[in-house]
Amino acid sequence: MGISTKEGLQRIKFSSVDFIGIEEIEKELNHSLEDAKDVMKEMCQHILSAGGKRVRPLLVLNSGLVFSGQTSQLLQAATAAELIHMASLVHDDIIDNSDLRRNKPSINKVWGTHFAVLCGDYLFSKAFGILSRNRLIASMDLMVEAIQNMCQGEIIQAGERFNHEISIDRYYEIIGMKTAIFLQCCCKSGAAVSEANSFQLQMIGEYGLNLGYAFQIIDDILDFCGRVETTGKPKCEDVRQGNITLPLILLMKDPAYSAWVTETIHNREFSEETLAEVIFVLNDKGIIKECFHIAAKHILKAKECLTLLPQNAYTQLLDELADMLQARVN
Amino acid sequence: MGISTKEGLQRIKFSSVDFIGIEEIEKELNHSLEDAKDVMKEMCQHILSAGGKRVRPLLVLNSGLVFSGQTSQLLQAATAAELIHMASLVHDDIIDNSDLRRNKPSINKVWGTHFAVLCGDYLFSKAFGILSRNRLIASMDLMVEAIQNMCQGEIIQAGERFNHEISIDRYYEIIGMKTAIFLQCCCKSGAAVSEANSFQLQMIGEYGLNLGYAFQIIDDILDFCGRVETTGKPKCEDVRQGNITLPLILLMKDPAYSAWVTETIHNREFSEETLAEVIFVLNDKGIIKECFHIAAKHILKAKECLTLLPQNAYTQLLDELADMLQARVN
Repeated sequence: MGISTKEGLQRIKFSSVDFIGIEEIEKELNHSLEDAKDVMKEMCQHILSAGGKRVRPLLVLNSGLVFSGQTSQLLQAATAAELIHMASLVHDDIIDNSDLRRNKPSINKVWGTHFAVLCGDYLFSKAFGILSRNRLIASMDLMVEAIQNMCQGEIIQAGERFNHEISIDRYYEIIGMKTAIFLQCCCKSGAAVSEANSFQLQMIGEYGLNLGYAFQIIDDILDFCGRVETTGKPKCEDVRQGNITLPLILLMKDPAYSAWVTETIHNREFSEETLAEVIFVLNDKGIIKECFHIAAKHILKAKECLTLLPQNAYTQLLDELADMLQARVN
Repeated sequence: MGISTKEGLQRIKFSSVDFIGIEEIEKELNHSLEDAKDVMKEMCQHILSAGGKRVRPLLVLNSGLVFSGQTSQLLQAATAAELIHMASLVHDDIIDNSDLRRNKPSINKVWGTHFAVLCGDYLFSKAFGILSRNRLIASMDLMVEAIQNMCQGEIIQAGERFNHEISIDRYYEIIGMKTAIFLQCCCKSGAAVSEANSFQLQMIGEYGLNLGYAFQIIDDILDFCGRVETTGKPKCEDVRQGNITLPLILLMKDPAYSAWVTETIHNREFSEETLAEVIFVLNDKGIIKECFHIAAKHILKAKECLTLLPQNAYTQLLDELADMLQARVN
């Protein structure tokens, strides 16, 4: 679910911000999976050792810390969010038949589809076990909402493959469901554990949602103009798979290119030459710039939401996370 | 997870017992999935229309009714159990590459692996959404336990494929994890909603566990001597896939056949002639009878547990469910 975004999230450099709680989260993740047995244990260790930026648990944790002190409950809610993310990655790799994940062979590559399905289910159940055991009801409602949206979003995206008539609204619906709502739910989950009020929950949620939109839009831009070394995937991989994202949707609105792009999508004619031409036009017509501008607006909106919340070290951290995205945009 | 058992459960004839709540469960199942969208909706409707005996929700519901009156909470816990079962069936069919489920094409057959993975995840999340929304914490803990056991049990079973040294203890561990514990958790889930005390929870759980063992053992026997029309799968399908079950484990304890069976398993030489000979010997040496006897002991134990609980129409119903199994044994 939302593969490309997840990879996008991973690509963010965290070096400038020393996120609070990353070590605790790592410890809890290890702890939560230590009673797995046999091959399940091997698979869990494989996933854990592959690492990751742990963006979702950090959002849970720091969103909670905005409103109250560090608690075991908060750490548990954060751990559950990462387990759900891991589960979705394992299942994604089955779906995409991916061989690599975080530069390590994927679970399905090493252990086959059979075990990968079970491993993902196990990780989901571990997450819900933590939420249930710790009576984190609000977080559970939010994680359920996130998973249902991811599943439905992936399905809607698949249904829109190679659809040259896809609207911007539909694009937003998809990136919301498969990516942004999960980030929104993570922020709200942490804030709910810390007993934020309903306005605060809404605002921290808006922050996460807009962060998610920006993440995904930037990821979709980078499909056209990112360097392979940065994105870790071949150029125009999404387009080749038929995912019509913001840059192409905007290009189709240009009368001079509408017919050509529509026909290319319709005929699925994504030769290297055509793609090179598409990329040239996207840059030439200022559409890449326009997309970055749209992402920047979401980042700004995310940052604005933070100004309405208690101002402390943790709001500052969340603000810096948005800045890191902004830095990629400029 | 536990495919063969699930099919076994389906094969039970319920005509002699008019289970209380089956219509309400059906209605709730439909209701719980009605907000699915697009293809997800089609998949959910496909699964719902394929039907099933709804053994797990009936166990939840009737186990609860033993201790108190019908409540919406109880019905929700029952619905969640069936959704989890459905999710595991959808994922099982990916794992086994099955084309048919309940005499309809499987989800992966119609919509492909991609959508089947997402559909299963969606059903799991729907189940946890119901449990979370209704604050059914005890049921949630139990369903998490059931899923984790199913996943791990499947993996352990896969690891023991074609292992001629598999012990009876290991066999029990596997059938417990992949089948019996789910039934145990269903019974305990219903009883917990009805606020049964800890002794009662333990007893109704023992009932479910032993019912589960009996179900699976009988299913494993029928792999060798069931009629294809009844079992709905080719004879000796489990054996061919390398699942060494109770009949073969017992046969290997017979000095006259130990070497032959061991070698057959080791060399994976399951020709039609060999299998016919195995079946002949299993009958001739009384091993089939012995296995049925072992299943009967579990049924008896299940029924004994019920005698320690409040005696009413619902304990009676659960007793009759065990009898139906007994009727298959004789």
